[in-house]
Amino acid sequence: MSQSGLITMNHMTHIQQLNPNAVALCSLGRWIASRHWVPATGGNFSIRQDENTALVTASGRDKGELSPQDLLPVSWQQEELFSPLGKPSAETALHAQLYQLDPAIKVVLHTHSVAATVFSRIISTEQYFFSGYEMQKAITGVTSHEQSLPLAIFDNTQNIPALAQQVKHCWQTKPLNFGLLVRGHGLYVWGYSLEQAKRHLEGWEFLINCELERIKLTGKP
Amino acid sequence: MSQSGLITMNHMTHIQQLNPNAVALCSLGRWIASRHWVPATGGNFSIRQDENTALVTASGRDKGELSPQDLLPVSWQQEELFSPLGKPSAETALHAQLYQLDPAIKVVLHTHSVAATVFSRIISTEQYFFSGYEMQKAITGVTSHEQSLPLAIFDNTQNIPALAQQVKHCWQTKPLNFGLLVRGHGLYVWGYSLEQAKRHLEGWEFLINCELERIKLTGKP
Amino acid sequence: MSQSGLITMNHMTHIQQLNPNAVALCSLGRWIASRHWVPATGGNFSIRQDENTALVTASGRDKGELSPQDLLPVSWQQEELFSPLGKPSAETALHAQLYQLDPAIKVVLHTHSVAATVFSRIISTEQYFFSGYEMQKAITGVTSHEQSLPLAIFDNTQNIPALAQQVKHCWQTKPLNFGLLVRGHGLYVWGYSLEQAKRHLEGWEFLINCELERIKLTGKP
Amino acid sequence: MSQSGLITMNHMTHIQQLNPNAVALCSLGRWIASRHWVPATGGNFSIRQDENTALVTASGRDKGELSPQDLLPVSWQQEELFSPLGKPSAETALHAQLYQLDPAIKVVLHTHSVAATVFSRIISTEQYFFSGYEMQKAITGVTSHEQSLPLAIFDNTQNIPALAQQVKHCWQTKPLNFGLLVRGHGLYVWGYSLEQAKRHLEGWEFLINCELERIKLTGKP
Repeated sequence: MSQSGLITMNHMTHIQQLNPNAVALCSLGRWIASRHWVPATGGNFSIRQDENTALVTASGRDKGELSPQDLLPVSWQQEELFSPLGKPSAETALHAQLYQLDPAIKVVLHTHSVAATVFSRIISTEQYFFSGYEMQKAITGVTSHEQSLPLAIFDNTQNIPALAQQVKHCWQTKPLNFGLLVRGHGLYVWGYSLEQAKRHLEGWEFLINCELERIKLTGKP
Repeated sequence: MSQSGLITMNHMTHIQQLNPNAVALCSLGRWIASRHWVPATGGNFSIRQDENTALVTASGRDKGELSPQDLLPVSWQQEELFSPLGKPSAETALHAQLYQLDPAIKVVLHTHSVAATVFSRIISTEQYFFSGYEMQKAITGVTSHEQSLPLAIFDNTQNIPALAQQVKHCWQTKPLNFGLLVRGHGLYVWGYSLEQAKRHLEGWEFLINCELERIKLTGKP
Repeated sequence: MSQSGLITMNHMTHIQQLNPNAVALCSLGRWIASRHWVPATGGNFSIRQDENTALVTASGRDKGELSPQDLLPVSWQQEELFSPLGKPSAETALHAQLYQLDPAIKVVLHTHSVAATVFSRIISTEQYFFSGYEMQKAITGVTSHEQSLPLAIFDNTQNIPALAQQVKHCWQTKPLNFGLLVRGHGLYVWGYSLEQAKRHLEGWEFLINCELERIKLTGKP
Repeated sequence: MSQSGLITMNHMTHIQQLNPNAVALCSLGRWIASRHWVPATGGNFSIRQDENTALVTASGRDKGELSPQDLLPVSWQQEELFSPLGKPSAETALHAQLYQLDPAIKVVLHTHSVAATVFSRIISTEQYFFSGYEMQKAITGVTSHEQSLPLAIFDNTQNIPALAQQVKHCWQTKPLNFGLLVRGHGLYVWGYSLEQAKRHLEGWEFLINCELERIKLTGKP
């Protein structure tokens, strides 16, 4: 990296340490790690800075030790990603896609819990419908346990831009309800604030865990 | 909110920060959150102040970060609820009903564990009978594992006043044993002190978890 | 209680706060509570002081907040128990029985985990044999996973002196391997030191958990 | 032990307390204990010092309280082990074997989780193939969930040098992927750095847990 690149990185790191968004995202990230939902350096988190920019966790960091210097600024223009500090991780493309689909999205969280991963594999359909749970109301817009709440499941691929395109296509035809599963991979949730994104994460994890337990107990998927 | 409303709120918040009941309820609430029994801002807790008043958690607060300013004073008169700081959350009606049914009740805890939620769905009857567990003695009044200990299960509804009426009706015909389940929703427990309410919560959670594990192992509900 | 009784209690409490055995047992007890193995004030712990005396947890204390003033000195003479501070809890009789059966026992731990409780109910025999687990070597005297390691299971009763007699009778005919289950009730472990009793507790809990998982996975008890 | 032996031990202990490798391994070890993956003083950890020497945990220590004085320096020459502070524990032979098989290995971790132990018993083959999990990429060298990732399983034995020979033999014929199971015993993982060994541990534990849950849910091993 060039001398000017190093200066930029130090400068940006300094800015991020003082950035309340960065500090709050890292605090939430460490809490998520304490739940064992991002093991083995897996998962990634981001928080929007402005219309075309977000801070995104650098790949390979232990999420239990997350601090502002582990966040990279990333900008986007359609499918193109730019980062002054080097090539952002592949999965950033899905974060950028979500930020472009809804300008109100402030935070995107991608996690790898055992429950979400297993659930996404035992369900072979493109959507799973939750009903009868009061906890469905944790998802913004849901007002009753009597509604049927779909969660979309996409097949996994190492081609993240292609996955991002599928999500965009899906977004236009059926509601995504602030969350989606990637099969054998994990969960993405988002929200209009850090608090809302955390609530959606806990809500979806709860619903998925309940259905897994129910299937174990009754034998009926 | 009017200027005088703001003054009232600041004044009340100040009082609650110094109120040992409020401090102790928040401490118990954070412990309950650490058990993952109130995820996604779910659940609510209350502590009686006098015959017709309790402090109740405001809806939508992260229970892992509960502090006295998250508690609202609520008064009741039959089915009517009053709060100087605005409209209390719907579920407060069930807390108020319990306080009116037994003047010795000091604390009500409403939680959303995966175990209690799933258990309430796989059991389709109005009551479930626990027997053979020493832990039944955690519930006040139980003296032997040989007794049969019923736990009532009510169907979920978004009409909390109607649910409160059903609980009142049930109270007069069969014992509730310091706890009840709402199907697909969660657990309510209560006690004559904070310590007793916590013991009832842990006791019922333990018994429910044991039965779920037993059903998984033996296949027999 | 008489004036002299109060003086005795204050005096004893003072002694226990300075007693390294009491401090160490409380520290272990809080760790056990953090594992959720003594919920709802259940369980009890003791540490031997001399041939005929031990410090025992007073009944009804939250084990997550255990401190030396929650320990009571208890002496025994055959089946008779004496405590200068009042009537000890019923289960103390089983602790005293174990201390009399082997003068080398220093610590007795009685816990109520979901796993041990459920395991003791799904197994209907008087003993369960563990084999093929390296962890069997956590139990003092075991040198190979190829040995068959029995764990005795006694039916629960509210008559603790009768249970203590059964344990004494069993002790003379078959090895107890530093642990026993009471059906639907919980686990007792003991050891010649605090460290050894903790190791026996973790070892037996591990073995029981493994067998429960194995049964769930294979359907074979 | 001779006077000079005591001097050596104090001297070595002092060196280890200042050794950043020792401090970092103990920190990781306590984290592993907090996950309940080394219960009942089970498991052992090591970190390479030079070509023929590593620091290894002394047997019988509570891994939740690990500190540098619990580490012993051990050297090897083929199958022979040497330690200035006495006879190293039997399982050290497998650590030494791994260090000799790949000079880039820096850290070896041996753990005893319930999941790994049970998994190793319900699978009766010499290898188990994981596929379809994004988390497979946590294992160094894996680039896609579409690869089939084998984990070797060796039968348990109290003859650790014989087991070390089997691992050496296996190493030359099929890839070990930075981990192996010993049946009914536990998991060994290794890495070229502490961070990588931790990632391999979390990755393998995650994959094993996912497969166990999948088998419980679908009944298909």
